[in-house]
Amino acid sequence: MSFNSFGHLFRFTTWGESHGPAIGVVIDGCPPNIEISPKIIQAELNRRKPGQSRFTTQRQEPDEVKILSGVFEDENTEGLRTTGTPISLLIENKDQRSKDYSDIKDKYRPGHADYSYHQKYGIRDYRGGGRSSARETAPRVAAGAVARLVIPDVKIRASLVQMGKHKIDYNNFDWEEVNNNPFFCADKEAAKKWENYLDGIRKNGSSIGAIIEVVAEGVPAGWGAPIYGKLSADLASAMMSINAVKSVEIGAGIDAASLSGEENADEMRAGENAPYFTSNHSGGILGGISNGDAIVIRFAVKPTSSILNERDTVTTDNENTKIITKGRHDPCVGIRAVPIGEAMMALVLADHFLRHRGQVGRDGAFGFEK
Amino acid sequence: MSFNSFGHLFRFTTWGESHGPAIGVVIDGCPPNIEISPKIIQAELNRRKPGQSRFTTQRQEPDEVKILSGVFEDENTEGLRTTGTPISLLIENKDQRSKDYSDIKDKYRPGHADYSYHQKYGIRDYRGGGRSSARETAPRVAAGAVARLVIPDVKIRASLVQMGKHKIDYNNFDWEEVNNNPFFCADKEAAKKWENYLDGIRKNGSSIGAIIEVVAEGVPAGWGAPIYGKLSADLASAMMSINAVKSVEIGAGIDAASLSGEENADEMRAGENAPYFTSNHSGGILGGISNGDAIVIRFAVKPTSSILNERDTVTTDNENTKIITKGRHDPCVGIRAVPIGEAMMALVLADHFLRHRGQVGRDGAFGFEK
Amino acid sequence: MSFNSFGHLFRFTTWGESHGPAIGVVIDGCPPNIEISPKIIQAELNRRKPGQSRFTTQRQEPDEVKILSGVFEDENTEGLRTTGTPISLLIENKDQRSKDYSDIKDKYRPGHADYSYHQKYGIRDYRGGGRSSARETAPRVAAGAVARLVIPDVKIRASLVQMGKHKIDYNNFDWEEVNNNPFFCADKEAAKKWENYLDGIRKNGSSIGAIIEVVAEGVPAGWGAPIYGKLSADLASAMMSINAVKSVEIGAGIDAASLSGEENADEMRAGENAPYFTSNHSGGILGGISNGDAIVIRFAVKPTSSILNERDTVTTDNENTKIITKGRHDPCVGIRAVPIGEAMMALVLADHFLRHRGQVGRDGAFGFEK
Amino acid sequence: MSFNSFGHLFRFTTWGESHGPAIGVVIDGCPPNIEISPKIIQAELNRRKPGQSRFTTQRQEPDEVKILSGVFEDENTEGLRTTGTPISLLIENKDQRSKDYSDIKDKYRPGHADYSYHQKYGIRDYRGGGRSSARETAPRVAAGAVARLVIPDVKIRASLVQMGKHKIDYNNFDWEEVNNNPFFCADKEAAKKWENYLDGIRKNGSSIGAIIEVVAEGVPAGWGAPIYGKLSADLASAMMSINAVKSVEIGAGIDAASLSGEENADEMRAGENAPYFTSNHSGGILGGISNGDAIVIRFAVKPTSSILNERDTVTTDNENTKIITKGRHDPCVGIRAVPIGEAMMALVLADHFLRHRGQVGRDGAFGFEK
Repeated sequence: MSFNSFGHLFRFTTWGESHGPAIGVVIDGCPPNIEISPKIIQAELNRRKPGQSRFTTQRQEPDEVKILSGVFEDENTEGLRTTGTPISLLIENKDQRSKDYSDIKDKYRPGHADYSYHQKYGIRDYRGGGRSSARETAPRVAAGAVARLVIPDVKIRASLVQMGKHKIDYNNFDWEEVNNNPFFCADKEAAKKWENYLDGIRKNGSSIGAIIEVVAEGVPAGWGAPIYGKLSADLASAMMSINAVKSVEIGAGIDAASLSGEENADEMRAGENAPYFTSNHSGGILGGISNGDAIVIRFAVKPTSSILNERDTVTTDNENTKIITKGRHDPCVGIRAVPIGEAMMALVLADHFLRHRGQVGRDGAFGFEK
Repeated sequence: MSFNSFGHLFRFTTWGESHGPAIGVVIDGCPPNIEISPKIIQAELNRRKPGQSRFTTQRQEPDEVKILSGVFEDENTEGLRTTGTPISLLIENKDQRSKDYSDIKDKYRPGHADYSYHQKYGIRDYRGGGRSSARETAPRVAAGAVARLVIPDVKIRASLVQMGKHKIDYNNFDWEEVNNNPFFCADKEAAKKWENYLDGIRKNGSSIGAIIEVVAEGVPAGWGAPIYGKLSADLASAMMSINAVKSVEIGAGIDAASLSGEENADEMRAGENAPYFTSNHSGGILGGISNGDAIVIRFAVKPTSSILNERDTVTTDNENTKIITKGRHDPCVGIRAVPIGEAMMALVLADHFLRHRGQVGRDGAFGFEK
Repeated sequence: MSFNSFGHLFRFTTWGESHGPAIGVVIDGCPPNIEISPKIIQAELNRRKPGQSRFTTQRQEPDEVKILSGVFEDENTEGLRTTGTPISLLIENKDQRSKDYSDIKDKYRPGHADYSYHQKYGIRDYRGGGRSSARETAPRVAAGAVARLVIPDVKIRASLVQMGKHKIDYNNFDWEEVNNNPFFCADKEAAKKWENYLDGIRKNGSSIGAIIEVVAEGVPAGWGAPIYGKLSADLASAMMSINAVKSVEIGAGIDAASLSGEENADEMRAGENAPYFTSNHSGGILGGISNGDAIVIRFAVKPTSSILNERDTVTTDNENTKIITKGRHDPCVGIRAVPIGEAMMALVLADHFLRHRGQVGRDGAFGFEK
Repeated sequence: MSFNSFGHLFRFTTWGESHGPAIGVVIDGCPPNIEISPKIIQAELNRRKPGQSRFTTQRQEPDEVKILSGVFEDENTEGLRTTGTPISLLIENKDQRSKDYSDIKDKYRPGHADYSYHQKYGIRDYRGGGRSSARETAPRVAAGAVARLVIPDVKIRASLVQMGKHKIDYNNFDWEEVNNNPFFCADKEAAKKWENYLDGIRKNGSSIGAIIEVVAEGVPAGWGAPIYGKLSADLASAMMSINAVKSVEIGAGIDAASLSGEENADEMRAGENAPYFTSNHSGGILGGISNGDAIVIRFAVKPTSSILNERDTVTTDNENTKIITKGRHDPCVGIRAVPIGEAMMALVLADHFLRHRGQVGRDGAFGFEK
């Protein structure tokens, strides 16, 4: 019921505004005795951090994470371990420029949450979007880094697979390439072309949307809990909660609408120890429960609404006006959504792992032992 | 945390299997003093009911709903009113054929949840899919009928907008047509063509996917609660929890990936009492909060996995085999998903209405009074 | 958040009114593969059932339970097993007398929830107390019977330990006696005296309060989750949710106020495999977590408010009047609270067992292996 | 489901250990537009703060609270207002002495949570009790200060009413006296006597238990939600979650066991605008719902387990040993439980206010308008 919490057994709560003193997250329900360090969390945060290339916002934030609770020194090593109590992570805001906000104070920026927040609460922190800022995703990524430690056998990776109308070629898909270009793109040919493309958009003061694909390998069959705790439903909620996300697809996704039953239903064959599927249109989830295959999810991110071109809007007094959203923004906010999508995948899976273990008493599937 | 519950203040829990004695739902948190009757609920159930045309399963279920609790006689009329206590609705299963299930008892049907349920729980009710059967959606529709009563000023309608590769023409879109064809389709021309198309598929023993669009009008600005209680996130979870759904889109949805910031961000103009948006790429939701515009959501439904053509699969002993899924099935299960999508929309909105009212103390937006 | 649900991983939702067609409970999150039968549940229900002696209400209810979902035939035996899906239990109301309720329709019964329900909801089902009736405890007892199956190694027993001012003598305490008298009292001497005492009260048309002690043995160290999921906090909530309960004590309870630190803190000694406590003032719970000792809880039940003696009250129009609550009532409603207290203990423990297992990955404590 | 969260619509999550860098709380769901300031919160924190008299622990903590999020400048004043987003409050730990913890590192302190935490998690932060320390109550008190702002018409006060065997005389009861003595005691005569009494205990290195009474006036009829969201059940859980609490009583409490129906059930009389009760054995709650009378709750706090007298215990290797708990401790920890009890009352009531408003659409009761 908490509006700013997500998950059930592995549950996190984020707080903080774009221009407040700090942002953070409290993780509750983490299993004890897991090796942890600020460094592990920092590594993930650094991937999301702004200002790393000309293609992301130039706001300079070190995004340095502090662990305030929930860990204790390992008896034998110099390291830290989780204690099972809440883990509080804090990131100070450093680069809140003392710029003049009078423009957005009295106007609603098109495509932003200014209007809806104001209507809901009757008050809004207009500085940089306040709570609706993408800055809120830093704590998610920090929490996601902890979640990964809970499910060490699951490998979670993501790639930008479309920018504007330009899709990657899946024949070129190579996970190794993701960290070799500023787009987290697994297709190095596409990434090369996108540089010029996005430069053009950036120089025009415009922006463009994107699609991200997140894949989790190593999830055993059996995670996810029908009917309203379906793995697919929780993943959809998780991805749709990311700023600017407008669609979520699992496996064949929207294309499943065009398929016949013969084309879509994944056939099975006997494997050495367990059956396997000859295709993965299901995206690794059947009836809301993982089937042992890779979990595959894609989500579309709309173009940044902050653009340098003048737009029609209204004042908070309902009078017509124009607005140009100056400031430091991402020409393709989808790029930084890549590590965020990974984090949300890790957070959903860690939670479902614990839920499954709680109800069923084992980590994975019942398997084929008779 | 309940796996089989949905919602927070307006919360429902469904139970029951395809071939058990009954299925049902308990609705908790419904406001008191709302006029209600079995007839109102039955009307919605009848829209989802199987066997209404040759395009849906021939299983014959009267789907007669009984209200077992949570209502009391109105002091002045002969009618019933909600009392604020849990409303228990029960629907008996009538047409569970005593057919031989030995085939699916020992084999996993491709595209079905047989395998994942078995792996998760180590036991499964294989009769008709058990808990994973679409029969579970009847209680949702019943609950949705109650949810509609909680938000009488919101108009919720849905249409099939794509069957297989065949999309409707939005120029023909007319809500009045939805009830004039067996597909709940707002484009009568498309509906006409689909009859032959689906007949062909049906006679081939095959099946096809579809896309449904659900629209809610009359939602005031202010519903939905960031960050993890976003209206969009809860709608995504709601729709993705429906059997066979593989994608969810809000507003421009997946197409937002291809748009520029100028194309996508909806501009505002001063209206008489409140601003309005000159377009609705946002699907009525900004920052997870309704903006007063129509809420627009689409979801893709995969083709029924139960088809008459032989498929490869394995036995529960991990041996290769073949399977034909006989029985009574929907050639396009997306058709009956139309009233289900409406129900889920109503259920999400009723919950968010109460949540908003709880936190903020008003039904709608703060508005423009100063 | 559900008002009518309790528990987290092992979670149940009750519904129904005293004079509706039926009452029931839906249990969600039960582990799969547990042997179950209507008979096991019925045995617990029969202990709570009214009309078993002259000391409980004469309402005649068979309280026959039906299992509507969540179970499936065992592959090898003729019995049933849980499937991991929601277990819906239904009990029909049979003995709702068509008596004239006009008296309580327009008046508030002192000590009853008539007034507070009416003020909260603006409408109330006045027949027999509607939702506030002790009839709601039948579904709890049914759910508790299922909970016991989840924690078969835990032995849960309860005894009436005080009726009015008359306390039992703990020197006579013998669990074997509990089922030998109509009071579920472990002290057969006290039970003998109470017969005459309660007969007097009954014949006077009066009623009397009582105290119940519930003990759970076999709970390993480690269940319960600080800070707000303390085993003690959840037990307090569970017992206080029972109709007419006005106090809850754990271990030394209220007497702890009068003790010194030396008297109260339980000392420890080395046992063969694990330490043990030389006393149990803690009631088996330290810091909200079980310590391996017996869990001991007591709760006080107020006297039935339905009495045959005339009382002052007001009408629903705020006019002074008098009332006599006729009907079939318990002279000491605390008696039937004994199996209810056991059920609530089982329900809390089953939930905490699963929660502990989910977070920590083992059923019990880490123990002393190094 | 969060272990470290409490409440539903007004929900808070605490984090932090006794000797970590800081402790804190995140409050989610607070209504917007409420005037707030660090000063208001600080005032409540200062009442709980250690080291204010010789009767509480000498640990010196300024307990200075920082508001990190969820507030924004008022348009018209210099003050702050809540924005409806999460309010993060942080309190740094200042006086964690770098003392040698080797004694409690390897031994379990009797009456403390050392053993149960260790058994549950397999690891524990032994410094000062870690998460089980009463230091966790500072964030509760901070959250309670915010909760009070949500229900400004409700007056919440508390008094120590028993220390050891010494009860106050209710004839002397005067709320004005509570702040005139170091015990938060409404009976100045009792407070006078307790000084010597507690000095004796303190000098002996011993400790003593206590009982606290918390009263909330101004709660309208209608708050609280049966069956498992009863106001009484949530209050019981809230109070039992406070460190060292062993019993909770509402209204007549444990004495209700000794009363007859005539003595216990509060009669009603017609008032000018609404009925009133001629007594308050119910403690202001009937059927789990407030009845408009004062809410009265009492809870017993066990004596501090940290005492200077040697006790028997075991090592973490299950070997017999002795222990003396040195350090700075409260001879009667019940004293500082007084503002904590008030805070928990405020937190429960604020939550139930919002829940009631959400479901029913009004702040208070339906009342007598027809």
